[in-house]
Amino acid sequence: MAADAIQNRRIVLASRPKGKPVAENFRTETQTLPALEEGQVLLRTLWLSLDPYMRGRMSDAPSYAPPVELNDVMTAGAVSRVEQSRHPKFQEGDLVVGATGWQTHSISDGSGLMPLPAGIPQPSMALGVLGMPGMTAFMGLTHIGQPKEGETLVVAAASGAVGSVVGQVAKLKGLKVVGVAGGPEKCKYVVEELGFDACVDHRSETFAKDLAAACDKGIDVYFENVGGEVFEAVIPLLNPRARIPVCGLIAHYNEQDLPEGKDRLSLIPRLLLTKRVRMQGFIVFDDFGDRHAEFFSAMVPWVRDGKIKFREHVVEGLDNAPEAFFGLLEGKNFGKLVVKVSE
Amino acid sequence: MAADAIQNRRIVLASRPKGKPVAENFRTETQTLPALEEGQVLLRTLWLSLDPYMRGRMSDAPSYAPPVELNDVMTAGAVSRVEQSRHPKFQEGDLVVGATGWQTHSISDGSGLMPLPAGIPQPSMALGVLGMPGMTAFMGLTHIGQPKEGETLVVAAASGAVGSVVGQVAKLKGLKVVGVAGGPEKCKYVVEELGFDACVDHRSETFAKDLAAACDKGIDVYFENVGGEVFEAVIPLLNPRARIPVCGLIAHYNEQDLPEGKDRLSLIPRLLLTKRVRMQGFIVFDDFGDRHAEFFSAMVPWVRDGKIKFREHVVEGLDNAPEAFFGLLEGKNFGKLVVKVSE
Repeated sequence: MAADAIQNRRIVLASRPKGKPVAENFRTETQTLPALEEGQVLLRTLWLSLDPYMRGRMSDAPSYAPPVELNDVMTAGAVSRVEQSRHPKFQEGDLVVGATGWQTHSISDGSGLMPLPAGIPQPSMALGVLGMPGMTAFMGLTHIGQPKEGETLVVAAASGAVGSVVGQVAKLKGLKVVGVAGGPEKCKYVVEELGFDACVDHRSETFAKDLAAACDKGIDVYFENVGGEVFEAVIPLLNPRARIPVCGLIAHYNEQDLPEGKDRLSLIPRLLLTKRVRMQGFIVFDDFGDRHAEFFSAMVPWVRDGKIKFREHVVEGLDNAPEAFFGLLEGKNFGKLVVKVSE
Repeated sequence: MAADAIQNRRIVLASRPKGKPVAENFRTETQTLPALEEGQVLLRTLWLSLDPYMRGRMSDAPSYAPPVELNDVMTAGAVSRVEQSRHPKFQEGDLVVGATGWQTHSISDGSGLMPLPAGIPQPSMALGVLGMPGMTAFMGLTHIGQPKEGETLVVAAASGAVGSVVGQVAKLKGLKVVGVAGGPEKCKYVVEELGFDACVDHRSETFAKDLAAACDKGIDVYFENVGGEVFEAVIPLLNPRARIPVCGLIAHYNEQDLPEGKDRLSLIPRLLLTKRVRMQGFIVFDDFGDRHAEFFSAMVPWVRDGKIKFREHVVEGLDNAPEAFFGLLEGKNFGKLVVKVSE
């Protein structure tokens, strides 16, 4: 059976960025897909997820995952519809989630493809609140953050895909939750819509002081997803036996060199020692990849019942993915950033 | 009942050090002790423990424990003999362990005093291999380090009170163990007597390269008790999911200011993230203070059967404590440093 000649539009990594990524680091191509072989499915991308970790995959610096090779399609999770199937487990019309990349179509042998979670209210949520970012938030908070009722938690990028879930789950567990976000509009949303106790604007000149005022009993859990000035403002506020799950460091992703000045390398071990702090990095699918059931059983009801709210920032069309991604690295999105690739 | 006028010789903190502590930071005094009251015991110090953490107590920088006040006796754990007792739980001649300080005698109401561990071969061991340093090693390694058979562990100050126990317990648990020590004599002892697989001399110019060669499968557990150049050499060798219990940072205790240069503050969060490392500070009696039974039941047989060896560095006489302490901070001791105060 030959597939009709499908034209796949895709965005590949043309060159590795030096500092901030730019349009020239990407190239859009059209590719004629081969006919399906036995055991394969043809997928049409509906929703594409854009996430900060992709900046790491553009670099060949050592990291937890191999980089995207030059001229390969950019990596991404996506929700797709099965257009043709020669695979016994998939039927035409099925909706699936998989790491299919920045492209309109893909061919898969089914490995790594998951059906949409049961009971999901809308497909794109499988990329956000009920997908990798939500699971990152839930697992890092629960298993490394070990939140206890009455404690204080701080999370940055609080209106974003991970931060918004961290804070809302912590509220459900009885913590005082202080968000950090960029600008008054996001801060207002975090407090009024998401129900955080407070939200501090990191763009304010009095940010560190504002954070200290909001955390009048110190910080017991700092969910680290940004680094930089937020982490520095958190350090003096940490309580003894604080926990710091480290899931991302977006403030540093575009750094080409370390800043000049005093070498503060030793400050973190000293902090961990004097305050008996636990700091632990994790990658959700590597460290908690077998716990989808635990995640869905907690989160699906919360989302369905409106106890966990979320917001999507939808960009239309694959061609707008690079520009949207640049904005994501600067906090220009408001909510989980997804690209609507196809109806 | 009046005590005969006991003359207590004691060493007090005269001033706080700037950088390395010096003789002038201490003052030796003789004090006439008052008569015992009901519920008190008079103790004669036999063995005094000198440990790196005492440098922290000389400073008023924020730390996990309050500093020694100026003109107060220097803090220390010691083994003492009960000379007189008006306390129902103690009898003349009992041997006890307690934080009685740098002095020849002390009066206690019994709080914090423990009898010597049952089955201990010699009293001074209650300050080392079967005391605070041994318990620090055992608890930090077991509960934070989570050693697994076949993994590689690195520990510095490998001939010292903590490092020697960390390495030997790890060997008993089936790990490859690489020590770091200062000079060929200590390294020889660590390998030939303590049974480590290798020991690298941190004074060598090729230290970082030597450590890498010894850890040909990377490092899974780094027990941090020194910081500084050892930690820096360890960083590139850490394997994914490595664990770093942080119990001390002796390389930094005398630092007055941070070094100039690139600010590497962000390197540690990046390391933790990209390698999914867990790094956790702990203070043994605060975090594991209720687990003496677990410690003794494992360690007493190992020590008695010669499976855990140790070495003491004995200094004679209280008056020599300051000089011995200065040497400890520079690694001049060889084995657990104890002061023999009285027969």
